[in-house]
Formats: sequence, C-alpha cells, structure tokens
Amino acid sequence: MWMATRGKTRARLLETAADLLHRQGYASTGLNQVLDEASAPRGSLYFHFPGGKEELMAEALRGASAGLTELLERTLASAPSAEVALFLIVEYFRGQLEQSKFAKGCPVATVALEQAAVSDPIHAACSRAYTQWEALIAGRLVRDGWARTRADEVAGFILSSIEGALILCRAHRSTAPLLRVGGELRRLLTRKDAA
Amino acid sequence: MWMATRGKTRARLLETAADLLHRQGYASTGLNQVLDEASAPRGSLYFHFPGGKEELMAEALRGASAGLTELLERTLASAPSAEVALFLIVEYFRGQLEQSKFAKGCPVATVALEQAAVSDPIHAACSRAYTQWEALIAGRLVRDGWARTRADEVAGFILSSIEGALILCRAHRSTAPLLRVGGELRRLLTRKDAA
Repeated sequence: MWMATRGKTRARLLETAADLLHRQGYASTGLNQVLDEASAPRGSLYFHFPGGKEELMAEALRGASAGLTELLERTLASAPSAEVALFLIVEYFRGQLEQSKFAKGCPVATVALEQAAVSDPIHAACSRAYTQWEALIAGRLVRDGWARTRADEVAGFILSSIEGALILCRAHRSTAPLLRVGGELRRLLTRKDAA
Repeated sequence: MWMATRGKTRARLLETAADLLHRQGYASTGLNQVLDEASAPRGSLYFHFPGGKEELMAEALRGASAGLTELLERTLASAPSAEVALFLIVEYFRGQLEQSKFAKGCPVATVALEQAAVSDPIHAACSRAYTQWEALIAGRLVRDGWARTRADEVAGFILSSIEGALILCRAHRSTAPLLRVGGELRRLLTRKDAA
C-alpha cells in the first residue's frame, strides 16, 4: 500500500512536470509548481529524483517523448500509406494546438532549445526522441517502396518541416502553417519517383 | 553628451538582452543578468523600459529579428538564384551553430515557444518576424519565375523546414540535420516546374 502510494507520487510528479514542460518550457517550470500541481509532499521530490530538477525534467521528457513515439509508431504502422499517416499526425498536432490555445506543440522542442546546449541529460533525452521519430518515418517510407538512403534523407526533411511548422503555429497562434506543410508533404510523397 | 550616454545605455541593454534571449530563452534571462552584462545602472532599466521585462524583451526581439531580416533580404536579393540564396542562409546558420557550440539557432524560436501563447507583445514580435521572412523567400521565388500562389506555399514550407532543422541541430548538437535540409531544398527548387 505504502509502496503503491510512493509509485503513484512518482508517476504524478513526472506527468505534471511533463505537462508543464510542454506548455511553458524548462526555465519557467519551478519545482514548487510541480509539487503544488501534483499535490505531492516536498520531501517526495528529492526522494524520487535525488538529482533534483535536471533529473526530474529529463525523466519527464523521456516519458512525454515515449508517448509521442508510441503514437507515431502506431499511426505509421496502421495507416495505408506514409501520406495518410502524415495527414493523421498533422491532424493530431492541429487538435492539440487548438485545444491548448497554442500552448502545446512538440513536447520536446521548447526544452531542446532552452537546454540541449547546456544540459547533457536533457540533450540526450531530446536527441534520442528526435532520432526515434526520424527512424520511424524513414522505416515507413522504406515499407512504401523508397530506397533506404532517400528514405533517411526525406525523413529528416519531413520531421524538420513539421517541427518548424509547430513553431510557426505557436508564434502566429494559427494552425495555418502546419496545414500548409501537410499539403506540401502530400505533394512530396506522391511524387516519390521524382524525389 | 548626457543624451548620448543614455542612448548608448538603451542600445546596450537591448543588445545584451537579445544575445541572452537567443542563447538561453526568455524565462532564464533575468533582468539582473541583463543589467550586469550590459554594465548598466539598475535605474536605467525602468527608465528606458517602463513596461519591465516584457517590454525590454519584446523590443530586443524586434531588434534581433530585424537584423536577420536584413541579412535575408540582402542575401535573397543579391544571390543569382533562390537555390544559391538558401545555400548561403544555411551556411550562415551552420557557422552560427558551430561558433556558439549549438547555443544559437534562430533568434526568435526559443522565445516564441516559451512565450507566444501567453504574452501578446512577444507573440506580435515573433509573428511579425516570421511573416517577413516568409514574404522575403516567397518574393525571391516569384522573381525566379514561380507562380505567386505556389511561391507563397513553398516559402512557408522552406521556412518551416529550416526552423525545424535548427531545433534538431541544437537537440543533437550537430549541424547534420540542417545540411540535409539544405540538400532537400536544393532538390525542391531545381524541380520548380514539378512543384
């Protein structure tokens, strides 16, 4: 019972930290806010995360990015083609941007820009997430008949264009840049042979 | 003389704030750090920026983005083609990433992700910068013979892909994602008719 409560506190701290990181980034997210919003006792933080803020945030980031990895994996595996999968992924982000009033785009990007140059654990968590997402896209392109080398190149381009569109959407408070990139990606993919 | 000193203090505060925003984002940049690094007296801050941090940062962001707007304008105007201009722009960012040890990518992106959803002045400054950059790229595509509608669509795609690549470069601490996007953009532009 006591162990179960402890496990739940840890999970709640991670979930709260991930949500705050996603909305407001690393520097704005204070440990007091995480503890308050998770309704967790102060002592629980250093008990579960002796490395303090950096450890909590890197772990929260790994959790959040694993959630998106799963969603990408499922979508890319089950859609009838890479085009359809990317359409569904664009729709997912569109919904998230709208529901969060443009507070939530990519769960990793803000923290990557704030911290990857200075924090090794954050750099590792961000880099791993992007590497996985790119590999998932490339894998689906190969399954659709792309040559491996071109699939790898184009997957990086696709990931970059979606990540950039998510910045533009948040900056403009509009989903138009993402929908436009979605349209261009459709063109790119339907012209596989020319690529 | 006194006025000149005052003007210089203001300029120094803006330049320091812009540099810190670029490297570490909005939330990490405290007013004390700006005053220290600008060697400016405490009183000068609210004298020049009665709106405090938000006003200083929005103004610094406008200055930094105007600098990049000028560079894009000059490069896009003088290069023999959009392809060459984008190659030069990619090289500019590559140099900046390497020289700053991956602390400096796009001067607007970090702050856009941290603050555009919650601060109206920051949202306005970021949105304006991205609108200008996209328009400059689109203008150059039209000059190279693209139809206006396609030029507008493709310019948004180009800007998104570069912005996203700059995130990936910072996350991975590598310029490879940007160079790869540069290669894909070259392909895209040399196949203008097919686009």
